[in-house]
Amino acid sequence: MKLLLLNHRSFMAAPLGSVRRALLSTCSAVKWEGGVSMVQGASRGIGLEFVKQLLEKNEKGHVIATCRNPDGATALLDLKNEFAERLNILQLDLTIESTIEASANSIRERYGSLNLLINASGILSIPNILQPETTLSKVQKSSLLLAYEVNAVGPILVIKHMWPLLTAGGGSGTERDVAVVANLSARVGSIGDNRLGGWHSYRSSKAALNQLTKTISVEFVRKKDPVICLLLHPGTVDTDLSRPFQRNVPEGKLFTKEFSVNKLLSIINNAKSHDNGKFFAWDGQEIPW
Amino acid sequence: MKLLLLNHRSFMAAPLGSVRRALLSTCSAVKWEGGVSMVQGASRGIGLEFVKQLLEKNEKGHVIATCRNPDGATALLDLKNEFAERLNILQLDLTIESTIEASANSIRERYGSLNLLINASGILSIPNILQPETTLSKVQKSSLLLAYEVNAVGPILVIKHMWPLLTAGGGSGTERDVAVVANLSARVGSIGDNRLGGWHSYRSSKAALNQLTKTISVEFVRKKDPVICLLLHPGTVDTDLSRPFQRNVPEGKLFTKEFSVNKLLSIINNAKSHDNGKFFAWDGQEIPW
Repeated sequence: MKLLLLNHRSFMAAPLGSVRRALLSTCSAVKWEGGVSMVQGASRGIGLEFVKQLLEKNEKGHVIATCRNPDGATALLDLKNEFAERLNILQLDLTIESTIEASANSIRERYGSLNLLINASGILSIPNILQPETTLSKVQKSSLLLAYEVNAVGPILVIKHMWPLLTAGGGSGTERDVAVVANLSARVGSIGDNRLGGWHSYRSSKAALNQLTKTISVEFVRKKDPVICLLLHPGTVDTDLSRPFQRNVPEGKLFTKEFSVNKLLSIINNAKSHDNGKFFAWDGQEIPW
Repeated sequence: MKLLLLNHRSFMAAPLGSVRRALLSTCSAVKWEGGVSMVQGASRGIGLEFVKQLLEKNEKGHVIATCRNPDGATALLDLKNEFAERLNILQLDLTIESTIEASANSIRERYGSLNLLINASGILSIPNILQPETTLSKVQKSSLLLAYEVNAVGPILVIKHMWPLLTAGGGSGTERDVAVVANLSARVGSIGDNRLGGWHSYRSSKAALNQLTKTISVEFVRKKDPVICLLLHPGTVDTDLSRPFQRNVPEGKLFTKEFSVNKLLSIINNAKSHDNGKFFAWDGQEIPW
C-alpha cells in the first residue's frame, strides 16, 4: 500500500516530461520505463563513464548521479545540459551518512523506486594522506581506517538507505527480473588471488567490501527481495585512481573507461538471480574470494 | 651485530633464573630454550588459556601476556604467582599504538627475540555499543569501524611492531624451523562459507584480518624471514565472547577453552613453512576464503 502511495506521490510531484509511464494498478507494474539507475561516485573516472553510457544506451532511462561536490563536477554538468531531466545530480558524501539519507529521501520523492545502484567510488591513494603500502613496516592505522571507511563502509551504508527503493523497483522497466546493486571491487581484494602482497589498506578494504556484499546478498534471498548484489572488477582502467600505478601494467591490459564500463554494463544488464553475491571480472570470469 | 648486542643486553639485564641459555656466538643459536611466546589479549577466554597451556606444556618456555588492564587481570596474576619469572605481564591496548610499541621495546630489552605471537583478542558484542547485526537495516557505521579497528587493524599493528623480534627469534629454542604469528580468526569471516548472512561488522572485520594476514605472509616469504603467519578458527568456544550466542550451537559443538586451545597449539607447534598464510580450523582442516 505504501509502495503505491509513494509511486503516486512521485508521479504527481515529478516534472511531466520525466514521467514516462507509471502503471499504479499492481506492484509489479512498470514504474519507470527504461528504469531508474543511481551511480554513486559519479563525478569522474569509472562512475562518470557509467552515467554517460547509461544515458546514451537507454534513451528512456533515468540516472541519478551522486558526488561530493556537484558544483565542481563539470563533466556531470555538461551531461546535464545534454540529457536534461533524465539526469539528476545529487550531493552525497559517503563519509557523512546524513547525505546518504537525504539522497534516499530525494529519490523516494521524485522516483519512488530504483532499479540499479552502482557504487563506483573508491580510494587507493591521496597525496600525503594515503599511500598504498609497499611493506608492513609502513602500515598506518589512519590509512587502514580511511580506506575501510570509504571503500567498504560507505557503499554498504548507501545500500542500506537505498534498499527499500530497490525492493520497490525490482526489474520493472528494465530487461531484468531484478534490481541490481553493483559494487566496484578489485581483483587485489581477492584473498585467494593475493600473490604479490602490499597495498594493505586497499586490499583489506576491498576484501571487507566483498564480505559485506556477500552478507547482504544472503539477506536479499532470505527476504525474497527482487534485488541482487554483484561485485565487479573493472580491470586496470586509465583513471585518476590508477594513474600513479600504471607503469607496471602489461601492454594491452590498461583499459579505457569506455571499454571497461561497456563490459561491466553488459554483466549488469544480463544479471540473473543466480548471480547474486558473486564476484565477476570485466570479462565475466568469476574471481575467487 | 645489533641482534647479538640486544641478546647480550637481555642476557645481562634479565634476572639470572630467567636466562636459560643464551648462545651468543651465531645468529642461528638457541636464544631462549623453550622459546619466547607472546599472547596478546590474554586476560580471559582463549588468550588466557593459551598462556596457561604454553606455561604448563613447556617447562622452559617464557610467555609474555598482554592485556589492557593488568591490575584487574586476576587470573593472569594467579598464573604469575605460580610461574614467576617465566610469565611476564605487559599492558597493551590494541587501539593505542604507543602501548604496542612500548611492549615491543620492553620485550626487546628483556628477551631480544620472539618465537611465537598469538593475537587472541577480539570483539563481537559489547552491550549498548556493539551488537551483531541481524539485518542490513541495523548496520551502523560506528559498529563497522569499531570491529575493524579491534579485530583487524589492532592485530596487524602488533605484528608490525613485533616483526623484528620474530625475525630475530625464528624457530630457535623451539621444535619448529620458524617463528609463528597466529591470528585468531573465525569461520564466519570466510566469504565463501557465508551462508547465513548477518553479523556484518564481525564478518567484515575477520575477512579483513584474513586479507591482511595473507598480505603479510607474502612479504615474509619475499624477505626470506624465518616467520610464518597462520589464521586459526577455534570453533565455538565457551567464553564471554560466545556466551550470548550459544543457544543455537549444536550439541557437542560448544568446545571448552582447554579443548580448543590444545588443538590450536598442536597446529602451531607443528606448523611448517608451507603453512604460511593459511586459514585452519581447530581440527586442522583448511577453511576457504
